[in-house]
Parts: sequence; structure tokens; C-alpha cells
Amino acid sequence: LGEDNVNEDPLRRAQLSLGQSYGDQLARRSGRIARLCDAVVVPADQDAVVALVELAQTHGLRLTPVSGATNVVGAIDGAGVDAKPWIVVDLSSLNAIRNISERDLAASVEAGVMLAELERRLGERSLTLGHFPQSFARASLGGSIMANGAGQASDGYGRMSDMLIAAKLATPRGLWRTERFRHAAAGPWLGGLVAGSEGLFGILVEADIRVTHAPEIVEDRAFALPSFAAGLEAMRALAQSGVGLSMKRLSDERETDFYGQLRLRRKGLDAPPQFERVAARLLRVPPRPALLIASYEGPRARLRTTFSEAHRILAHAGAIGLGAAPGRSWRRDRFTAPIWREGLLAHGAGVETFETAARWSELPALHATVTTAISNAIAETAGAHGVVFAHVSHSYPEGASLYFTALFPQSDDPVGQWRLIKKRAADAIVAAGGTVSHHHGLGADHAPWAQAEKGGLGLSALRALKGAFDPQGVMATGAELAL
Amino acid sequence: LGEDNVNEDPLRRAQLSLGQSYGDQLARRSGRIARLCDAVVVPADQDAVVALVELAQTHGLRLTPVSGATNVVGAIDGAGVDAKPWIVVDLSSLNAIRNISERDLAASVEAGVMLAELERRLGERSLTLGHFPQSFARASLGGSIMANGAGQASDGYGRMSDMLIAAKLATPRGLWRTERFRHAAAGPWLGGLVAGSEGLFGILVEADIRVTHAPEIVEDRAFALPSFAAGLEAMRALAQSGVGLSMKRLSDERETDFYGQLRLRRKGLDAPPQFERVAARLLRVPPRPALLIASYEGPRARLRTTFSEAHRILAHAGAIGLGAAPGRSWRRDRFTAPIWREGLLAHGAGVETFETAARWSELPALHATVTTAISNAIAETAGAHGVVFAHVSHSYPEGASLYFTALFPQSDDPVGQWRLIKKRAADAIVAAGGTVSHHHGLGADHAPWAQAEKGGLGLSALRALKGAFDPQGVMATGAELAL
Repeated sequence: LGEDNVNEDPLRRAQLSLGQSYGDQLARRSGRIARLCDAVVVPADQDAVVALVELAQTHGLRLTPVSGATNVVGAIDGAGVDAKPWIVVDLSSLNAIRNISERDLAASVEAGVMLAELERRLGERSLTLGHFPQSFARASLGGSIMANGAGQASDGYGRMSDMLIAAKLATPRGLWRTERFRHAAAGPWLGGLVAGSEGLFGILVEADIRVTHAPEIVEDRAFALPSFAAGLEAMRALAQSGVGLSMKRLSDERETDFYGQLRLRRKGLDAPPQFERVAARLLRVPPRPALLIASYEGPRARLRTTFSEAHRILAHAGAIGLGAAPGRSWRRDRFTAPIWREGLLAHGAGVETFETAARWSELPALHATVTTAISNAIAETAGAHGVVFAHVSHSYPEGASLYFTALFPQSDDPVGQWRLIKKRAADAIVAAGGTVSHHHGLGADHAPWAQAEKGGLGLSALRALKGAFDPQGVMATGAELAL
Repeated sequence: LGEDNVNEDPLRRAQLSLGQSYGDQLARRSGRIARLCDAVVVPADQDAVVALVELAQTHGLRLTPVSGATNVVGAIDGAGVDAKPWIVVDLSSLNAIRNISERDLAASVEAGVMLAELERRLGERSLTLGHFPQSFARASLGGSIMANGAGQASDGYGRMSDMLIAAKLATPRGLWRTERFRHAAAGPWLGGLVAGSEGLFGILVEADIRVTHAPEIVEDRAFALPSFAAGLEAMRALAQSGVGLSMKRLSDERETDFYGQLRLRRKGLDAPPQFERVAARLLRVPPRPALLIASYEGPRARLRTTFSEAHRILAHAGAIGLGAAPGRSWRRDRFTAPIWREGLLAHGAGVETFETAARWSELPALHATVTTAISNAIAETAGAHGVVFAHVSHSYPEGASLYFTALFPQSDDPVGQWRLIKKRAADAIVAAGGTVSHHHGLGADHAPWAQAEKGGLGLSALRALKGAFDPQGVMATGAELAL
């Protein structure tokens, strides 16, 4: 491995013994970190990763792969690691982009490559991956695949499980190369098990991913819907019509109001778009509108047909066009939420997000009951009401995601408060038929709800897979608590 | 189970102890069936399937689920079943369509429902599944899912693995319900293991599937491309541009010629479309053109933009429009190939098909080497050359399928001849980087090439999964020979 590649400096170990969950942030602020990893190892290349996994297998070490360390659900979970030596494997040296094929619209990319760097390199050839999560500035390709992330434009480009062509994993049982071509009928597609596996089976070292021609044109348009309920119907019609939008994002009335107020209060910064004022001019804006932003990315030739079809559907739902300003504002700030969160935390205000997805027919009740569950948990722990709002931002023919944000005064026991709010939210999500995570991942934080989602037999299948790749439990990842 | 539901009649047993592979057809004609199942059981409902699987587990029976029995790769493989009693489970009574949700564009359908019946029922509500394999007239939903079929319009509607929302399987370890909502990041999507599993894990009893609004308009347009190579480039550009066609089918020069000749010779039947004549009028048709049929299915509003974009790409590749006639002809005959095959076989002419898929950059060499391998094997076994041609009919951003048809004089040892041609074709496919099956399945016939595709570690993962669901090997399916 090389001595230079083994780092025992306590600061570095502390940095990489946590991710970015709310609990991680509390731990980082308080200095009460459940467990520090024993060393951070930086393998120089793929062979070094393979050697390290072998070494770990022989010597009974536990390994947690890390690249961007942006996971927000406890994927790095020192508390869950047993007494064995715990090594965090920093994949930042696996940063090669080996082959960008314009002919096959595919690229071979090492797991540690940062999303921003990958987009830059693809952009040089007028290509894009199209994966833009909120963590875009700091996340890696490997982490995105292993968490099965969905970026803001997933309606257009798909999520990581759609983009993955083939993967190469260093597992304790050896190097696993998944099928070369995924669109096949040669038994179940085993490569499909990689996306969302969160390191359970081994360390992803390289992936072949699908890339796309960079869009000729990107255009955002905003609309005020009479209500979230009316907006949901419009989102459903848009998703089910197959109209080619790259993003459809609908805020509920409270989120619309919250960001509207925020913008009004920030004036003087940089000419904040005040869509309420524009809308008011139309004299038809409903008293508590729901904001919908629709984005198009693609060839110029399809722009007009796409938006004319979208406008027809939206008009049917009572939408009022608000022009381009709210979309511009959203696009400018779209990667900044994590910074807000850290800033507010420093002033005693907790910010946590909860996300799920379900069928269209289940979304209204899911929205209502989860909002109530989170509000009640805040009231119970903080003695004040806080703010809870939500948006829908990833649609499918059969359903959509739902993303909740809660802002609340911190209690005297912030960790206990967080656990309670989190538990109430997840319980309500699962009870209403939602998945325990649409795109954040399982991690230690969601592991207790895995059984409700996968079933007993599903979990036993997952354990059998774990046994096939990592029989001695070398891999240390929050998700293993689900097994 | 009920005595009436257990059928020991030799004719019925013979009918369901084989599928529709070339080997099966030879066996059926010669009366030399490797092994007859000991009984055909027709469970009355899902509970009866569960009871039967339990019974089989207790009493050491082996079970092969069958519905349409249209599989062409040895999914029903009596030769591979050991000495235990072998029961074929006829799922035809599992024919309920429980819930068609227009709101969620989803339906819960029992495994034995026939595709044609399902389309009829969906059509009553202006919906469609959009799965139209060549076996449409006789295939079931359950079989389509378990083989991970891809229908002729898969470019538009997706293949079975795309359409599957959730599945319910009676496994020897109990009833397995996969995740309710597949677009999630709660660990790997285990439901994805069902499509293509070919009964390895248990008997599919019901599936939630995605449905689509029936298209407002269906339109086929045909084009003559200067060559198959030029056509491949056009297909690639069409697939990678994201232009919304539901089908793109490109015949190589030999296939174009073959069907063209066939049509000319069939005149008098029902005014056969003679696209060669139409094309000749344009005086620009290349001497050996490659026929491309492009279909649109969707709202009228998108038709013009879609075809104008497609025409621009096709013109760039040197395509000449041939109007609607060749498409009409294709659409009329699109489910009749199996009948042709049986008819020709009765006259000593073997017809076999071979299909694969690979990346665009690999397709030209794959096409050439596989064509040569099949031709040589025919020459070797029949002392004559036969006819080998191919088409591309399912495209993806990174690659496409390739479907070969071979017509050849039968040798004195038709089974040996078939095995040799099949082996040479599969060897050539795998050597050129193709998948051993794009949409027919693994079955006994492709099982020997599974290791090349999945790798040793992949197969051990598959064995581990098999162990989790069917530890004693109750399920008898051709694909198990891969393990």
C-alpha cells in the first residue's frame, strides 16, 4: 500500500469517520464522535484496493469506502463497527476517466472521480452525465452509484441505476465484474444489485456509465398552481403523458411560501426574483399557490412541442405562468442547501430532510400524515412548532418522490430530539406505503425500516448475497445494520 | 389441489414437457421426447400454487411452471430434471386481472393471463402494456416477465424489466413479495432479480405492472438505407438523440432482399406491398439496400416533430423514404414467423434464430463474425450454404440487439446439426462481446454460456440467491443448468 498512503492523523481520521447526516453534524459540532476509525488508507490504484481488501480478509480488518463522504443517512457508521480494527478507505486516488466513447455514449470512470470533475471532462466533448444531486459540488461518482442517487434532472437523464452499464467491485471473494451489457435476458441482471448496495458486497473501483449529448438548450419555466393537490394532478399528467421534461419540481403551499418570503427578505443581495409580484399582476394568483418549475434540456427542435404540450396540461390544472425568474433563482441556489443547513445549525436551528416515494394515489395521504408526524415530533421535543414543508421532484409513470424539509428549534438533547423526529417520520412514511428512501440511501439511519420494505425473505436474499461476496463481514457500512 | 386439477393424460403431459425451441420442435416431430413430466397440475388459484410448492418441498417433487409454453431456449427441459417426480405446473387458472389503476398507470395481473387478453382488457380503458413479442398470440404475462422479454415496440414502452413494478412469487421458502415501489434507494432493488429469473427462485403468481395510455396515433414509415453499415449509423443516431420512436427496425441487406423476394413471390395473395418498385421509381435506390422501418406511437401533437427529427437523421445517412407500405406489410405479418417456422420444418427446411446485443462499436464485427460462424456451421452439417440474415430491432443509447435468422437444409442428424449450429453461433456471439441472449432467455440451450456472461463470482451470487429461495432445488427450469 505504501506507508505514505496510510494516514493515522487524528484530524483526518475524525473527518472521515462521519458523513453529513444531521446526527453526524451534531457529533462533529459537539466533538462526541461515536468511534474514530483506526486509520485512513488511500490506495494508489485499483490493484491497491484489491490488495487491501485481501489484507482485510486475512487480518480481520473492517473497511469502509469513502470518496465524497456526503452521505446523509449514516453510511459511515462508527457506532455500528465491532471491536475489529476499522479502516476508512479514501478512494480519492481512483480518479481516472479511462475511456469516453462518443460512439457508445459510455465512459469508464473510477469510483473516486468527483461529479463536478466528471461533468467538466464530459463537457469538453459536449457530453454530460446528467446527474446533479444537491451534493454535486462534493460528491463522487462511486458514492452516487452505491447510494443509487437521483439528481435534480433525473426525470430526463434517469437515476444512477439507469445510468450504470457495468461495474467492477473489489469484493472479499475477489474482483467482481458485472455483465458487460445490461439489456439482456441471460438470467437476472446482477449488475442491478450494485446500485444502492452501499458497500455491502465490496468496494466499487470502476464503473461503465451511460453519458448523453449535452443539451442544445436548457430552459426553466415556472407556474403557480392553485394548490399542492392541483399541482400533484398536473405532475401526474405530465409524468404519464411522457412529455420530455428534464425536471418537474412542485413545492407544496408551505414551501412555496417559505422560499417566497426568503427571497423577499434577501432583496438587496442580487435582484431577487419576486414571482409573487409578477403573479399578482395577473390578478388571478391563488391566495396560497404551489410553485411548479418545469425544465427542458435537449435539442432546440423539441423545445416548442414539449412546452406547448406541458402548458396545455398545466393550464388544465389551473396553472398560471410565472416566466423564467423563479427557475433562474432555483437554478442559481440549487446546490447551496447544505451550506444553509450548516449555517442555521450554528444558530440553534435544526434542519433535517426526509424523503420517500410512492404511487400517485398514495401521495396526498403520505404528504399529509408525514407532515403531521414531523410537526408533532417537533412540538413534542422543542415545545414549538417549527416549519415543515415538502416538494415533489422526481416523477415516474406510477408515482413520484416526496421530499420534506423540517426547520425546528434545537432542544437540550439535540441527538435524542433528532432520533425521535427521524423515527416518527420514517414510521409515518412506511405506514403510508412510501419507500424509506427514494435517493438518500439506507445507511444506519434507515436500516431499521429495511425489513418493512424488503420483507423477511427479501432480507434473507440480501444476506445470502452478502455471504457470496463478503462471507466474513469485511465491509463495514451503515446499511449492514439492516441485515 | 383437487383431483380434477391433476392431469396424467399422456398427450397433455407431452404437450407441456416441451417448449418451442428448434430442438423441442424436432423432438415433437420425431416423437423422441427426452422425458415426459409425471403429471400436469393446474392450481385453481394462488393459494393452491403456494400449497403445491410446499407439498413439493416436503415430498421431494420438482416443479416447472408453464403458461404459454412459448419459450424457445429450453426453459422446459425434461432432460435436465433428475430422477425425482416431475410436475409441470400449468398456470392457466391464474388468469385474474385484479386492479387496473388509471391513476397510477398500474395493474395487478396474475401470471397466467395471456398477453392478448391483457391487451384487450387494457384496451377497454384506452390503456396498453405495449409488450408485443413475436409470440404475442400465445404468450402469457408471467412467462414474459420471467424470461425478461422485449417486445417489438420496446424502444417506446421498454422491456419487461422496465414494466415490472412489483412481483409476488411462491418460493419454497415462502411467499416473496418484492418492494412495493421500485424507484428507491433502500438497498439494491431486489424486485429487479425477478425479470429473467426463469423460475429459478419460485413460481411467479402475480405482478404489478406499469401500463401506458394507448397511443392516439400509430404510424410506420419505411426507408431504404444504402447499406447495413449506413443503417447502423442511422440507428445509433436515432437511439442516441432520444427521438421518441416506438420501434426502429433495420434489416441487413440479405434480410431486406429475402423478404423483398418473398413478397414479390406472394403476389396474388393480398396485394403485397412492393417497396422495391416504389423505390426504383425514385431511381436512387442503392443496389442492395437495407430496409429500416421506424414506428411512432403516441399523441398526435408529437408526431410531426418526431418524424421531422428522424427524417433529418436518416437523410444524413443517405436514406430514401419508401412510404407506409413496407411498414404495413411488416405490421400485418409481425406475429406469424412462428407459423412459417413450423411450416418450413415440415418440408425439411430448418429455421432457427439467434439473438444477442452489444455496444454500437461492437455491432459491425459481431454481425460479420456471427453470420460467418452460422454459415460455416450450416455448410459443415448440410453440405449447402443456406441463408443467414439479421436485423437490429431494439436500441439503447449504448448499443442494440442483433437478431439472426438461419434457413438451412436439414441434415440426416437434425438434432446434432442444430446443436452444432447453435454452439458455433453462441461461441461467436460471446467471443465478439455480445450477450448470449437479448430477449429469449437463458434456458438449457444458453446455460453453458452463462459463466462467460456472469463470471464465476456472478454465478456464485446467483447460486446464493437460489439457496435463499429454493435450497432443496424444488424448481426445475432449464436455466438451472447454468448454476
